[in-house]
Amino acid sequence: MAILAPSILSADFLNLGDNIRKLENAGIEMLHIDIMDGHFVPNLTFGPALVEYVRRFTRLKLDVHLMMTNPQDYIDEFCDVGADYITVHQEACMHLDRVISLIKKRGAKAGVALNPATPPSTLQYVLDDVDIVLVMSVNPGFGGQKFIERMLFKVAELDRLRGDKYGYQIEVDGGINNKNVKSLVESGADIIVAGTAVFRGDIIENCKKIGAIIK
Amino acid sequence: MAILAPSILSADFLNLGDNIRKLENAGIEMLHIDIMDGHFVPNLTFGPALVEYVRRFTRLKLDVHLMMTNPQDYIDEFCDVGADYITVHQEACMHLDRVISLIKKRGAKAGVALNPATPPSTLQYVLDDVDIVLVMSVNPGFGGQKFIERMLFKVAELDRLRGDKYGYQIEVDGGINNKNVKSLVESGADIIVAGTAVFRGDIIENCKKIGAIIK
Amino acid sequence: MAILAPSILSADFLNLGDNIRKLENAGIEMLHIDIMDGHFVPNLTFGPALVEYVRRFTRLKLDVHLMMTNPQDYIDEFCDVGADYITVHQEACMHLDRVISLIKKRGAKAGVALNPATPPSTLQYVLDDVDIVLVMSVNPGFGGQKFIERMLFKVAELDRLRGDKYGYQIEVDGGINNKNVKSLVESGADIIVAGTAVFRGDIIENCKKIGAIIK
Amino acid sequence: MAILAPSILSADFLNLGDNIRKLENAGIEMLHIDIMDGHFVPNLTFGPALVEYVRRFTRLKLDVHLMMTNPQDYIDEFCDVGADYITVHQEACMHLDRVISLIKKRGAKAGVALNPATPPSTLQYVLDDVDIVLVMSVNPGFGGQKFIERMLFKVAELDRLRGDKYGYQIEVDGGINNKNVKSLVESGADIIVAGTAVFRGDIIENCKKIGAIIK
Amino acid sequence: MAILAPSILSADFLNLGDNIRKLENAGIEMLHIDIMDGHFVPNLTFGPALVEYVRRFTRLKLDVHLMMTNPQDYIDEFCDVGADYITVHQEACMHLDRVISLIKKRGAKAGVALNPATPPSTLQYVLDDVDIVLVMSVNPGFGGQKFIERMLFKVAELDRLRGDKYGYQIEVDGGINNKNVKSLVESGADIIVAGTAVFRGDIIENCKKIGAIIK
Amino acid sequence: MAILAPSILSADFLNLGDNIRKLENAGIEMLHIDIMDGHFVPNLTFGPALVEYVRRFTRLKLDVHLMMTNPQDYIDEFCDVGADYITVHQEACMHLDRVISLIKKRGAKAGVALNPATPPSTLQYVLDDVDIVLVMSVNPGFGGQKFIERMLFKVAELDRLRGDKYGYQIEVDGGINNKNVKSLVESGADIIVAGTAVFRGDIIENCKKIGAIIK
Repeated sequence: MAILAPSILSADFLNLGDNIRKLENAGIEMLHIDIMDGHFVPNLTFGPALVEYVRRFTRLKLDVHLMMTNPQDYIDEFCDVGADYITVHQEACMHLDRVISLIKKRGAKAGVALNPATPPSTLQYVLDDVDIVLVMSVNPGFGGQKFIERMLFKVAELDRLRGDKYGYQIEVDGGINNKNVKSLVESGADIIVAGTAVFRGDIIENCKKIGAIIK
Repeated sequence: MAILAPSILSADFLNLGDNIRKLENAGIEMLHIDIMDGHFVPNLTFGPALVEYVRRFTRLKLDVHLMMTNPQDYIDEFCDVGADYITVHQEACMHLDRVISLIKKRGAKAGVALNPATPPSTLQYVLDDVDIVLVMSVNPGFGGQKFIERMLFKVAELDRLRGDKYGYQIEVDGGINNKNVKSLVESGADIIVAGTAVFRGDIIENCKKIGAIIK
Repeated sequence: MAILAPSILSADFLNLGDNIRKLENAGIEMLHIDIMDGHFVPNLTFGPALVEYVRRFTRLKLDVHLMMTNPQDYIDEFCDVGADYITVHQEACMHLDRVISLIKKRGAKAGVALNPATPPSTLQYVLDDVDIVLVMSVNPGFGGQKFIERMLFKVAELDRLRGDKYGYQIEVDGGINNKNVKSLVESGADIIVAGTAVFRGDIIENCKKIGAIIK
Repeated sequence: MAILAPSILSADFLNLGDNIRKLENAGIEMLHIDIMDGHFVPNLTFGPALVEYVRRFTRLKLDVHLMMTNPQDYIDEFCDVGADYITVHQEACMHLDRVISLIKKRGAKAGVALNPATPPSTLQYVLDDVDIVLVMSVNPGFGGQKFIERMLFKVAELDRLRGDKYGYQIEVDGGINNKNVKSLVESGADIIVAGTAVFRGDIIENCKKIGAIIK
Repeated sequence: MAILAPSILSADFLNLGDNIRKLENAGIEMLHIDIMDGHFVPNLTFGPALVEYVRRFTRLKLDVHLMMTNPQDYIDEFCDVGADYITVHQEACMHLDRVISLIKKRGAKAGVALNPATPPSTLQYVLDDVDIVLVMSVNPGFGGQKFIERMLFKVAELDRLRGDKYGYQIEVDGGINNKNVKSLVESGADIIVAGTAVFRGDIIENCKKIGAIIK
Repeated sequence: MAILAPSILSADFLNLGDNIRKLENAGIEMLHIDIMDGHFVPNLTFGPALVEYVRRFTRLKLDVHLMMTNPQDYIDEFCDVGADYITVHQEACMHLDRVISLIKKRGAKAGVALNPATPPSTLQYVLDDVDIVLVMSVNPGFGGQKFIERMLFKVAELDRLRGDKYGYQIEVDGGINNKNVKSLVESGADIIVAGTAVFRGDIIENCKKIGAIIK
């Protein structure tokens, strides 16, 4: 059974506390936080201080996605402020195994994200070590982009690779809405990240609609 | 007469709208927004989306301070979302004159920031072109650091250099509180940035206290 | 049927117009333009201005090969001056899918180049999106190098992968001459780039000789 | 007495040989060649191969201006193909003294270029070693930009610093035309680089007009 | 039959000559030298000068492992001082084929190292050209780390890939001791690098013990 | 009275312990250790492990000179292993004041080094905070280079700037020998670094000769 992880990227930043309460009321368990550094991606968003504010405010699982070129330098900071999951990009890590180890030594769950062009075969020697593989279904950097259809094949490939052998969860992020979410879950996705589809309009209702489809 | 520009870095991010209203009620005219990219400084904060939210919410002048290694790539974005002032670091700009021109062509005011170790003489050939020189009185990256005393001499040097010849304003940022703010203004500072000194405790009262000293 | 795309790298730069007229007279359809930035490769060649000059002068298809570490920053410029094909290196693109999309949104054909050591499997998730896969058969940077024999296997692998499934063309560049060109075409190559083999000696005759072999 | 150094950046690249012959006929002694790498400046132009072509074709002094972030890696190449002067940017050289030494050991004359914002004081400890100080009077990257008026003060400052103590020549590049050239020479400029002012229209006549003013 | 290559990283640097003599006396044939640059890995160790000292002192084969981000710039230096083998990291080479060619042109044997997360498939098009594939069984940077068990599968995969087709040797480095060395050799390893396991305690005895196991 | 600090760069690395004992016997108080990373300078030397070996072996003051592009990342490591002085390059530090503070917080003395081309005016706002200013009298990277004569003026300028106002010591490194050492001390140098002049020939005698001149 898949779960929905709303992406804070599309929340109302003047009323963040209020928005998070609504997610809790809608039965959401996990919040996706997109950290962009203006170098790995052509956009900048938030850092550890925001995660800390959110951490103090809610018991939602915090799923922190580091779209940074130097994630190894920020693992400690994000663990210190209470991240539950930390996901780094395969493309940004010369020493991917070391970064995963760092995250796990700090007691957090470790994820690896793949840009749309990056094949799962790059992860061959870390798949038994990661908790999440995050399939980017748009090119990371902005909310509101169009879902790249062939990422369904990547989800399916990761599901096949996993078989009975590995225990990672498959997360998908980018351009997800009421229409494409079903086929993602059917292909093997476990965690569905959604931004505008959750925060545009009535948050609680949006969560319920998507939730109903993916369960 | 100097003005106070509270730094949003120390605001309550779960209640940002509320905090900004208080600043307006306290008679504040300018809000300082610290953009950190995790590369120029060892911290990450916000990006254009936050500036856009704040812009729609308030008429306060937005003074955007880019602590980034590639500020030239983000001038358009920050102008698009409504920055009134954009300040870049001398240390981050191989082509400082071009970046200043870019800012001014877009209709914003242009500032240049100096790290504590950087002398004003590096600005000799842009001083007649900038609207603000920002003296960092701590090493940029975090709120709550201790004021570096000898930055008073840098403020005084910039005041001397300006004389009747240049029209730039002198801004100071870092470790400013009720005790050191007076000597800064006396040395020539026009814009006083304060974070914890404004947001820790009663925002309106803090603004009034500092305001009373610097006027 | 394969075509010949002469590489301007070996043309006579004091008589470029004259050289291009000869290519037209020899029935050439496509001109290969090597853009080197002195960072991705240890050589510097030309930029958008040269492409613009050539564009105004000829109707040959312009096949622009970006040997640059930051190709994403130059797509617009090369499209503006009239490139028909733009090829970027897999090794230089953290966000390969985004760069390909950028090229196609601008109406140009998109190619991806592979250095000799880079396997085709890196392209698994973009093969249905690219118009050209360019196999470098020397290490990029200079004209006049020796063909790396095992690149024949890479051409064959790309031909096999393509099957009926994908529509990309296979282009080969580096050390190609009258002797090795036939086996390349037999292995599946569609576009043959040649520099010194075309421009050293009689241009028209060279084109005809190679053309006769590859057709 | 100042001299004119036409910048090849604005020449007709389909008829480069012809353009250079005209410069010779107009009595020009020095040709300025702008090498841009797409990293130091947001444009790419030419590399060593072009310098080599020009070298074989003409006896004009070749004044090669490296707008590159890693000029130290290309000194040998540009000397090998016959550069008479090599100028590097102060902003691009952590080891400026070493680069100057490299150029001089190879028998070429050494220059240092200053972006519009960079003060001459940065050169204090190399002024007795350089043959040329090049004042950029536009931000480097493109032809056809507007002259930055206050660069006249920089030329004058360099002329004052030189006094009887140093032997360097002062070169100016960017936005120079019939109107501003006189004041530059009066301020102390020895070498005047001009692009569009030379190549737009009748090359020989343009050279003569500017030549008449600066002599 | 596998051989043992002690890693100088764990030698006594106040008595290096003495330590090397002991290795010779223990019948060692190859010395592994870890070059770390503080950029590819978070540690700095030695450079060409140390290799030169060792070269003059001993006839042991010197197996130089470049943990550097720019190995292409140091091939000549390490060949000049007498390296017999030079190994570069796949993760650090945009132009891996060129670097391997450079090493071989200089007459040294060429190796490629794989970080724990990097799959052997990245080497598909260089396997017939390399003399060594080095499997890192810890994340490079420090001595004394714990062996990563699943690297046994990577050794086995490389052994399978090699079959009768390729001639490369398989080297393993990191966390190797009396207990895990046997399974490495059984999986296909030819060269066993060991640091603390050799130099902690009696060097000659340690060499003999490990030697006895791997033969 | 100036002191001599032999540079370990020219020591015999097969007999380092022996060499250091000789320095102690010659009455030397301080050992200069050149850390080169292959990025800031075109050479690689040693790292923290060597400093640790030396620290355990001798009570000589250890003067660690970081020729690295990212010195801020290694301050802790070098303090942990017992450095007494840590000197960083002005050219390598965007946040020079922060790095100096880091060194001093750890209880070590802080130095700043200037490449031959870098003027002392760049240090205006840190001079009252540093313990050493190190004048490089060759371009850093190698032993055995020729002293750059005009660095005498830089030493003199630093001596003048210091006056009664600042307490820093002036250190000079590069190409120093029996002939030029006297004029350096007369110009204001306090610490004289020498490599080949100490280690080529009889170490104790060399130390005594230079010592006799500088006292």
